[in-house]
Amino acid sequence: MTDNPQSSNYALPHIGGLEAYVPGEQPGNNEWIKLNTNENPYPPSPVVGEAIQRESETVRLYPNPKSAPLREAIADKFGLQAAQVIVGNGSDDILNLLTRCFCGRGRAAGTTRPSYSLYPALCGIQDGDLIQIPFARDMELPVDEIAASGANIFFLTSPNTPTGVGFSTERIAEALESFSGLLVVDEAYADFANVNAVPLLARYSNLVITRSFSKSYGLAGMRVGYGLASEEVIDLLDRVRDSYNVNSLSQAAALAALGDWQYYRGVIFQIVETRDNYIGELREMDWFTYPSQANFLFTEPRDGNGRSGAEIARGLVEFLKERKILVRYFGGDTLTDSFVRISIGTEEQMKTFMETIESWQKSSA
Amino acid sequence: MTDNPQSSNYALPHIGGLEAYVPGEQPGNNEWIKLNTNENPYPPSPVVGEAIQRESETVRLYPNPKSAPLREAIADKFGLQAAQVIVGNGSDDILNLLTRCFCGRGRAAGTTRPSYSLYPALCGIQDGDLIQIPFARDMELPVDEIAASGANIFFLTSPNTPTGVGFSTERIAEALESFSGLLVVDEAYADFANVNAVPLLARYSNLVITRSFSKSYGLAGMRVGYGLASEEVIDLLDRVRDSYNVNSLSQAAALAALGDWQYYRGVIFQIVETRDNYIGELREMDWFTYPSQANFLFTEPRDGNGRSGAEIARGLVEFLKERKILVRYFGGDTLTDSFVRISIGTEEQMKTFMETIESWQKSSA
Repeated sequence: MTDNPQSSNYALPHIGGLEAYVPGEQPGNNEWIKLNTNENPYPPSPVVGEAIQRESETVRLYPNPKSAPLREAIADKFGLQAAQVIVGNGSDDILNLLTRCFCGRGRAAGTTRPSYSLYPALCGIQDGDLIQIPFARDMELPVDEIAASGANIFFLTSPNTPTGVGFSTERIAEALESFSGLLVVDEAYADFANVNAVPLLARYSNLVITRSFSKSYGLAGMRVGYGLASEEVIDLLDRVRDSYNVNSLSQAAALAALGDWQYYRGVIFQIVETRDNYIGELREMDWFTYPSQANFLFTEPRDGNGRSGAEIARGLVEFLKERKILVRYFGGDTLTDSFVRISIGTEEQMKTFMETIESWQKSSA
Repeated sequence: MTDNPQSSNYALPHIGGLEAYVPGEQPGNNEWIKLNTNENPYPPSPVVGEAIQRESETVRLYPNPKSAPLREAIADKFGLQAAQVIVGNGSDDILNLLTRCFCGRGRAAGTTRPSYSLYPALCGIQDGDLIQIPFARDMELPVDEIAASGANIFFLTSPNTPTGVGFSTERIAEALESFSGLLVVDEAYADFANVNAVPLLARYSNLVITRSFSKSYGLAGMRVGYGLASEEVIDLLDRVRDSYNVNSLSQAAALAALGDWQYYRGVIFQIVETRDNYIGELREMDWFTYPSQANFLFTEPRDGNGRSGAEIARGLVEFLKERKILVRYFGGDTLTDSFVRISIGTEEQMKTFMETIESWQKSSA
């Protein structure tokens, strides 16, 4: 076969039709105010840098294949057994493993709309059917629709993205009671919320919780996330996991970060305070803004004439981008297309952001 | 569903039957002489530590999602286009993506026996058929059998593991000519070899080459590998790749390492020299030892009475382990079960190893 221009002919039939998940823009220099990918605006604890420095002495050796010390530390934090914990190359890795184990032809994955757009991408790679249950504008958790979905695995982001709305433990328990598949509660933003589903693990074996070090712990660049579930589910995920999925520096960094909750409590408190202040300010401007339990807010901009809508929101995103401020826009869905999602930055970044939207309002009056 | 003890009932039927790939032992302290997982016995270039230090300042931000600067640098090294390069969380990540795109029900994966035991594990996760073509003891590349295998994708480790035998460019070209599927040449050890298959990329669109920073570059702990192929194949792999698969410190470390070939040339030269010396010594002891093109050697031990065989080899592995020396044993196959694989360590480690096998011989005479 000297020259075959169609090597993709060998690919599984559905692969050629896939579209990769599109992450938020990463401009790669720091001229920008980045309020688009929910990174932490504050640096990680100083102990993280020290751990990285120390661990960098031994990078010639393979990492701990199971991230065993980190599993232990996470289990301790939640009062679980280490066998109920799996660590991944970001929580995306855990979501991927879950999809590989529980979604495929004849085993549908379910998700709400809107939510994290990676779930449909992962389901597509598995050639599984996707069931999407739309939220109404009130963002009430559609428990009955989830129960009736017929999905084998259902991904629920709580707090939700992009709205930031959190769901109560009682409503999630109702979903776990009535849904006959595996319910994955993606708690990437739970450290910024008042409640989380961890207490439900003791009662429901069909619950999986995923968490991330990218947001509250400020380690987005290091790619560490984890899953909490029954020992039986963790055992299945481990069979599919790459044997060295988490590099040694990231394991060390996450372990160090976990050990300095005092520092992170302060960082999280600051972000939550900034968030709630600016939600208040936007509402005073009569911008509809969801109550957020995350490190971002989701708001419906009004231009200088008080108009809102998809065109207005897109206009603001462009205006901000021209002034080196990145926010995230989610088109293609009437529930989201008149909104913008704004990651909570430092006080200074948020002040610049507010000044810029005020000048946008003036320019559009 | 308040208490369902069988959450694994939801799993895809084949998942419950999988056995995870078992990596070599990682004892997690440095009392051991580790000659079992082909790590580099020498530290990485000093520029790597500097790059890690620099990059650790910005870990709160997500990494470059495509590892774009690293793809460019790898492409430059080989005179390829960046669109012909993909970077992974170790080369295992690339092997995984290849399997997800090209292996599944009705699309078999092929491999030689022996070779890297991850391929069968990856094929199993895809529920694909596995075709294994045994080597004869002469380790000649079975080109005709590969061509007739009917595999959709075929994994060839060159230099082979565990034997260390490398295959000539001509023989690999013959395989590419006659095999009608995608041929993956896993060149994890190619920096220690006299030849590699990179020049064939210009002629064969059904060739994929995978490489690793774990061995020659001494970055096993950081998990960076890459794939080289046609733009079309890379595009497919990118659709299945996790969008932030390589963390920012690992990208920076690999980029820095690539830039210091002068340092690595010296390290590689030292390892190759040590390897060839000890192959000579073992052959003088009348231990059959394959000609190795890798950073390990594969030898058939003889005890004090000149006997060899599976029991003898296992006995040596145990004897070494009791003395805190780890080597790798591959049972279950008559071609490998009378051998041990020894990663090339420092001169001092190899001297200790040789002294220990001499005392083993005496103890078994």
